[in-house]
Amino acid sequence: MAKTQITAEPGIPQIIMTCEFDAPRDLVYRAYTDPELLQQWLGPREYTMTVTENDVRDGGRWRFVHADAEGHEHGFHGVFHGDPSPEGIVRTFEYEGAPGHVSMETLTLTETGGRTRARTVSSFQAVEDRDAMISSGMERGVHDSDERITELLARLQAD
Amino acid sequence: MAKTQITAEPGIPQIIMTCEFDAPRDLVYRAYTDPELLQQWLGPREYTMTVTENDVRDGGRWRFVHADAEGHEHGFHGVFHGDPSPEGIVRTFEYEGAPGHVSMETLTLTETGGRTRARTVSSFQAVEDRDAMISSGMERGVHDSDERITELLARLQAD
Repeated sequence: MAKTQITAEPGIPQIIMTCEFDAPRDLVYRAYTDPELLQQWLGPREYTMTVTENDVRDGGRWRFVHADAEGHEHGFHGVFHGDPSPEGIVRTFEYEGAPGHVSMETLTLTETGGRTRARTVSSFQAVEDRDAMISSGMERGVHDSDERITELLARLQAD
Repeated sequence: MAKTQITAEPGIPQIIMTCEFDAPRDLVYRAYTDPELLQQWLGPREYTMTVTENDVRDGGRWRFVHADAEGHEHGFHGVFHGDPSPEGIVRTFEYEGAPGHVSMETLTLTETGGRTRARTVSSFQAVEDRDAMISSGMERGVHDSDERITELLARLQAD
Protein backbone atom coordinates (compact mmCIF):
# COMPACT_ATOMS: atom_id res chain seq x y z
CA MET A 1 0.00 0.00 0.00
CA ALA A 2 1.00 3.60 -0.51
CA LYS A 3 2.64 4.89 2.65
CA THR A 4 3.31 8.59 2.76
CA GLN A 5 6.70 9.69 4.07
CA ILE A 6 6.29 12.86 6.10
CA THR A 7 9.31 15.12 6.63
CA ALA A 8 9.25 18.15 8.91
CA GLU A 9 12.69 19.51 9.68
CA PRO A 10 13.28 21.59 12.81
CA GLY A 11 13.18 25.34 12.19
CA ILE A 12 11.99 25.08 8.59
CA PRO A 13 8.32 26.07 8.09
CA GLN A 14 7.51 23.29 5.66
CA ILE A 15 6.15 19.77 5.55
CA ILE A 16 7.29 17.54 2.69
CA MET A 17 5.20 14.45 1.90
CA THR A 18 6.05 11.81 -0.68
CA CYS A 19 4.01 8.83 -1.73
CA GLU A 20 4.07 6.33 -4.57
CA PHE A 21 1.02 4.84 -6.25
CA ASP A 22 0.69 1.76 -8.42
CA ALA A 23 -1.28 3.72 -11.02
CA PRO A 24 -0.61 5.97 -14.03
CA ARG A 25 -0.29 9.71 -13.46
CA ASP A 26 -3.46 10.74 -15.28
CA LEU A 27 -5.51 8.54 -12.97
CA VAL A 28 -3.82 9.88 -9.84
CA TYR A 29 -4.47 13.42 -11.09
CA ARG A 30 -8.15 12.55 -11.55
CA ALA A 31 -8.30 11.23 -7.98
CA TYR A 32 -6.85 14.56 -6.78
CA THR A 33 -9.18 16.82 -8.79
CA ASP A 34 -12.50 15.08 -9.53
CA PRO A 35 -14.88 15.91 -6.65
CA GLU A 36 -16.63 12.53 -6.93
CA LEU A 37 -13.30 10.78 -6.45
CA LEU A 38 -11.87 13.19 -3.85
CA GLN A 39 -14.88 12.59 -1.62
CA GLN A 40 -14.07 8.88 -1.61
CA TRP A 41 -10.56 9.11 -0.19
CA LEU A 42 -9.48 12.46 1.26
CA GLY A 43 -9.36 12.58 5.05
CA PRO A 44 -10.09 10.27 7.98
CA ARG A 45 -12.50 7.38 7.30
CA GLU A 46 -15.03 8.32 9.97
CA TYR A 47 -15.64 11.77 8.43
CA THR A 48 -18.04 12.50 5.62
CA MET A 49 -16.25 14.66 3.13
CA THR A 50 -18.10 17.07 0.85
CA VAL A 51 -16.55 19.15 -1.92
CA THR A 52 -18.58 22.38 -1.97
CA GLU A 53 -16.45 24.23 -4.53
CA ASN A 54 -13.78 22.98 -6.93
CA ASP A 55 -12.96 25.40 -9.72
CA VAL A 56 -9.80 23.68 -10.99
CA ARG A 57 -8.11 26.53 -12.89
CA ASP A 58 -5.76 29.45 -12.26
CA GLY A 59 -7.42 31.67 -9.65
CA GLY A 60 -10.26 29.21 -9.03
CA ARG A 61 -11.39 28.42 -5.50
CA TRP A 62 -11.76 25.05 -3.85
CA ARG A 63 -13.53 24.22 -0.58
CA PHE A 64 -14.30 21.03 1.21
CA VAL A 65 -16.00 20.14 4.46
CA HIS A 66 -15.38 17.21 6.77
CA ALA A 67 -18.33 16.29 9.01
CA ASP A 68 -18.20 13.82 11.89
CA ALA A 69 -21.03 11.51 13.00
CA GLU A 70 -22.44 14.21 15.30
CA GLY A 71 -22.56 16.69 12.41
CA HIS A 72 -19.63 18.86 13.56
CA GLU A 73 -18.16 20.42 10.44
CA HIS A 74 -14.59 21.41 9.60
CA GLY A 75 -14.18 23.53 6.49
CA PHE A 76 -11.04 24.06 4.41
CA HIS A 77 -10.58 26.25 1.38
CA GLY A 78 -8.04 27.88 -0.87
CA VAL A 79 -7.21 29.12 -4.35
CA PHE A 80 -5.46 27.38 -7.25
CA HIS A 81 -2.37 29.21 -8.52
CA GLY A 82 -1.50 28.50 -12.12
CA ASP A 83 -3.49 26.00 -14.19
CA PRO A 84 -3.50 22.61 -12.47
CA SER A 85 -2.30 19.78 -14.74
CA PRO A 86 -1.20 16.14 -14.35
CA GLU A 87 2.30 17.53 -13.76
CA GLY A 88 1.17 19.24 -10.62
CA ILE A 89 -0.97 21.62 -8.65
CA VAL A 90 -0.15 24.76 -6.65
CA ARG A 91 -2.84 25.88 -4.25
CA THR A 92 -3.29 27.69 -0.98
CA PHE A 93 -4.85 25.95 2.03
CA GLU A 94 -6.67 27.46 4.98
CA TYR A 95 -8.49 25.70 7.82
CA GLU A 96 -11.57 27.76 8.59
CA GLY A 97 -11.13 27.12 12.31
CA ALA A 98 -7.91 29.17 12.21
CA PRO A 99 -8.53 32.04 9.77
CA GLY A 100 -5.48 33.99 8.65
CA HIS A 101 -3.21 30.95 8.94
CA VAL A 102 -2.63 30.08 5.33
CA SER A 103 -0.25 27.54 3.83
CA MET A 104 0.69 26.89 0.24
CA GLU A 105 0.82 23.41 -1.26
CA THR A 106 2.91 22.43 -4.26
CA LEU A 107 2.04 18.96 -5.56
CA THR A 108 4.30 17.39 -8.18
CA LEU A 109 3.30 14.15 -9.93
CA THR A 110 5.89 12.11 -11.83
CA GLU A 111 5.28 8.79 -13.59
CA THR A 112 7.85 6.02 -14.04
CA GLY A 113 6.97 2.63 -15.50
CA GLY A 114 3.25 3.05 -14.86
CA ARG A 115 3.77 4.07 -11.23
CA THR A 116 3.27 7.62 -9.97
CA ARG A 117 5.18 9.49 -7.30
CA ALA A 118 3.38 12.34 -5.58
CA ARG A 119 5.45 14.93 -3.74
CA THR A 120 3.72 17.68 -1.77
CA VAL A 121 5.57 20.62 -0.25
CA SER A 122 3.46 22.60 2.21
CA SER A 123 4.94 26.01 3.03
CA PHE A 124 3.70 27.76 6.16
CA GLN A 125 3.88 31.37 7.34
CA ALA A 126 5.74 30.26 10.48
CA VAL A 127 7.23 27.14 12.06
CA GLU A 128 4.53 27.44 14.78
CA ASP A 129 1.82 27.09 12.12
CA ARG A 130 3.57 24.06 10.70
CA ASP A 131 3.83 22.48 14.17
CA ALA A 132 0.16 23.23 14.89
CA MET A 133 -0.79 21.39 11.70
CA ILE A 134 1.27 18.35 12.71
CA SER A 135 -0.11 18.23 16.25
CA SER A 136 -3.68 18.50 14.94
CA GLY A 137 -3.58 14.78 14.14
CA MET A 138 -2.61 15.29 10.52
CA GLU A 139 -0.65 12.04 10.43
CA ARG A 140 -3.67 9.85 11.11
CA GLY A 141 -5.66 11.68 8.41
CA VAL A 142 -2.79 11.12 5.96
CA HIS A 143 -2.61 7.43 6.90
CA ASP A 144 -6.35 6.92 6.31
CA SER A 145 -6.11 8.85 3.04
CA ASP A 146 -3.21 6.61 1.93
CA GLU A 147 -5.28 3.47 2.46
CA ARG A 148 -8.37 4.93 0.84
CA ILE A 149 -6.71 6.34 -2.29
CA THR A 150 -4.87 3.03 -2.76
CA GLU A 151 -8.19 1.17 -2.66
CA LEU A 152 -9.80 3.74 -4.98
CA LEU A 153 -7.00 3.57 -7.57
CA ALA A 154 -7.19 -0.25 -7.53
CA ARG A 155 -10.98 -0.15 -8.04
CA LEU A 156 -10.69 2.37 -10.89
CA GLN A 157 -8.09 0.24 -12.66
CA ALA A 158 -10.14 -2.95 -12.17
CA ASP A 159 -13.18 -1.33 -13.85
CA MET B 1 14.07 57.61 6.54
CA ALA B 2 12.51 54.22 6.69
CA LYS B 3 15.15 51.60 6.04
CA THR B 4 13.91 48.07 5.60
CA GLN B 5 15.82 45.33 7.40
CA ILE B 6 15.95 42.24 5.22
CA THR B 7 16.57 38.84 6.83
CA ALA B 8 17.10 35.67 4.80
CA GLU B 9 18.48 32.81 6.88
CA PRO B 10 20.36 29.98 5.18
CA GLY B 11 18.21 26.93 4.49
CA ILE B 12 14.91 28.58 5.46
CA PRO B 13 12.66 29.42 2.48
CA GLN B 14 11.55 32.80 3.80
CA ILE B 15 12.45 36.47 3.64
CA ILE B 16 11.53 38.63 6.62
CA MET B 17 11.42 42.39 6.11
CA THR B 18 10.78 44.96 8.82
CA CYS B 19 10.42 48.70 8.46
CA GLU B 20 9.21 51.56 10.63
CA PHE B 21 7.29 54.57 9.40
CA ASP B 22 6.74 57.94 11.06
CA ALA B 23 3.01 57.76 10.31
CA PRO B 24 -0.14 56.28 11.86
CA ARG B 25 -1.17 52.77 10.88
CA ASP B 26 -4.33 53.70 9.00
CA LEU B 27 -2.30 55.90 6.68
CA VAL B 28 0.33 53.21 6.07
CA TYR B 29 -2.48 50.76 5.31
CA ARG B 30 -3.91 53.21 2.77
CA ALA B 31 -0.49 53.52 1.12
CA TYR B 32 -0.38 49.71 0.82
CA THR B 33 -3.90 49.27 -0.57
CA ASP B 34 -5.04 52.40 -2.45
CA PRO B 35 -3.99 51.98 -6.12
CA GLU B 36 -3.45 55.74 -6.54
CA LEU B 37 -0.98 55.69 -3.65
CA LEU B 38 0.63 52.33 -4.45
CA GLN B 39 1.53 53.58 -7.92
CA GLN B 40 3.47 56.42 -6.31
CA TRP B 41 5.87 54.35 -4.25
CA LEU B 42 6.04 50.63 -5.00
CA GLY B 43 9.12 49.51 -6.92
CA PRO B 44 12.22 51.09 -8.45
CA ARG B 45 11.98 54.80 -9.31
CA GLU B 46 12.74 54.38 -13.01
CA TYR B 47 9.78 52.06 -13.57
CA THR B 48 6.24 53.18 -14.25
CA MET B 49 3.97 51.17 -12.04
CA THR B 50 0.35 50.46 -12.95
CA VAL B 51 -2.18 48.69 -10.77
CA THR B 52 -4.40 46.80 -13.22
CA GLU B 53 -6.46 44.93 -10.62
CA ASN B 54 -6.84 45.45 -6.87
CA ASP B 55 -9.83 43.71 -5.36
CA VAL B 56 -8.89 44.16 -1.69
CA ARG B 57 -11.02 41.44 -0.04
CA ASP B 58 -10.86 37.74 0.80
CA GLY B 59 -10.33 35.88 -2.46
CA GLY B 60 -9.86 39.08 -4.48
CA ARG B 61 -7.10 39.34 -7.05
CA TRP B 62 -4.41 42.01 -7.35
CA ARG B 63 -2.10 42.66 -10.29
CA PHE B 64 0.45 45.32 -11.04
CA VAL B 65 2.80 45.98 -13.91
CA HIS B 66 6.21 47.67 -13.88
CA ALA B 67 7.26 49.16 -17.22
CA ASP B 68 10.73 50.52 -17.98
CA ALA B 69 11.51 53.44 -20.27
CA GLU B 70 11.68 51.13 -23.31
CA GLY B 71 8.22 49.78 -22.52
CA HIS B 72 9.36 46.37 -21.30
CA GLU B 73 6.73 45.16 -18.87
CA HIS B 74 6.99 42.97 -15.78
CA GLY B 75 3.70 41.75 -14.36
CA PHE B 76 3.01 40.46 -10.85
CA HIS B 77 -0.23 39.12 -9.46
CA GLY B 78 -1.78 37.20 -6.61
CA VAL B 79 -4.82 36.66 -4.43
CA PHE B 80 -5.75 38.13 -1.03
CA HIS B 81 -6.39 35.53 1.67
CA GLY B 82 -8.67 36.70 4.46
CA ASP B 83 -10.04 40.22 4.55
CA PRO B 84 -7.19 42.74 4.48
CA SER B 85 -7.34 45.23 7.36
CA PRO B 86 -5.02 47.80 8.98
CA GLU B 87 -3.78 44.95 11.17
CA GLY B 88 -2.41 43.16 8.19
CA ILE B 89 -2.67 41.53 4.79
CA VAL B 90 -2.07 37.96 3.63
CA ARG B 91 -1.64 37.53 -0.10
CA THR B 92 0.06 35.34 -2.64
CA PHE B 93 2.65 36.77 -5.02
CA GLU B 94 3.70 35.50 -8.45
CA TYR B 95 6.06 37.08 -10.97
CA GLU B 96 4.59 36.43 -14.40
CA GLY B 97 8.08 35.85 -15.82
CA ALA B 98 8.36 32.71 -13.66
CA PRO B 99 4.90 31.12 -13.62
CA GLY B 100 4.31 28.41 -11.04
CA HIS B 101 6.76 29.97 -8.59
CA VAL B 102 4.42 31.39 -5.99
CA SER B 103 5.23 32.95 -2.65
CA MET B 104 2.95 34.02 0.17
CA GLU B 105 3.29 37.34 1.94
CA THR B 106 2.07 38.04 5.45
CA LEU B 107 2.17 41.75 6.30
CA THR B 108 1.58 42.78 9.91
CA LEU B 109 1.18 46.46 10.83
CA THR B 110 1.53 47.59 14.46
CA GLU B 111 1.28 51.19 15.73
CA THR B 112 3.12 52.58 18.75
CA GLY B 113 3.04 56.28 19.63
CA GLY B 114 1.95 57.35 16.17
CA ARG B 115 4.66 55.32 14.45
CA THR B 116 3.96 52.15 12.49
CA ARG B 117 6.05 49.02 12.17
CA ALA B 118 5.55 46.89 9.08
CA ARG B 119 6.71 43.29 9.15
CA THR B 120 6.46 41.17 6.03
CA VAL B 121 7.15 37.45 5.98
CA SER B 122 7.48 36.02 2.47
CA SER B 123 7.25 32.23 2.39
CA PHE B 124 8.56 30.45 -0.70
CA GLN B 125 8.02 26.95 -2.08
CA ALA B 126 11.78 26.32 -1.92
CA VAL B 127 15.01 27.96 -0.75
CA GLU B 128 16.03 28.18 -4.45
CA ASP B 129 12.96 30.33 -5.17
CA ARG B 130 13.80 32.58 -2.24
CA ASP B 131 17.40 32.95 -3.43
CA ALA B 132 16.25 33.70 -7.00
CA MET B 133 14.07 36.51 -5.64
CA ILE B 134 17.01 38.00 -3.72
CA SER B 135 19.41 37.79 -6.66
CA SER B 136 16.83 39.44 -8.96
CA GLY B 137 17.83 42.81 -7.52
CA MET B 138 15.04 42.88 -4.97
CA GLU B 139 17.13 44.86 -2.49
CA ARG B 140 17.43 47.90 -4.75
CA GLY B 141 13.69 47.85 -5.42
CA VAL B 142 13.05 47.70 -1.67
CA HIS B 143 15.46 50.59 -1.08
CA ASP B 144 13.75 52.79 -3.67
CA SER B 145 10.36 51.84 -2.27
CA ASP B 146 11.55 52.82 1.23
CA GLU B 147 12.52 56.29 0.08
CA ARG B 148 9.39 56.78 -1.96
CA ILE B 149 6.87 55.64 0.68
CA THR B 150 8.63 57.82 3.26
CA GLU B 151 8.24 60.84 0.98
CA LEU B 152 4.62 59.91 0.22
CA LEU B 153 3.65 59.49 3.90
CA ALA B 154 5.26 62.87 4.68
CA ARG B 155 3.32 64.54 1.85
CA LEU B 156 0.04 62.96 2.93
CA GLN B 157 0.55 64.13 6.52
CA ALA B 158 1.51 67.64 5.40
CA ASP B 159 -1.73 67.98 3.41
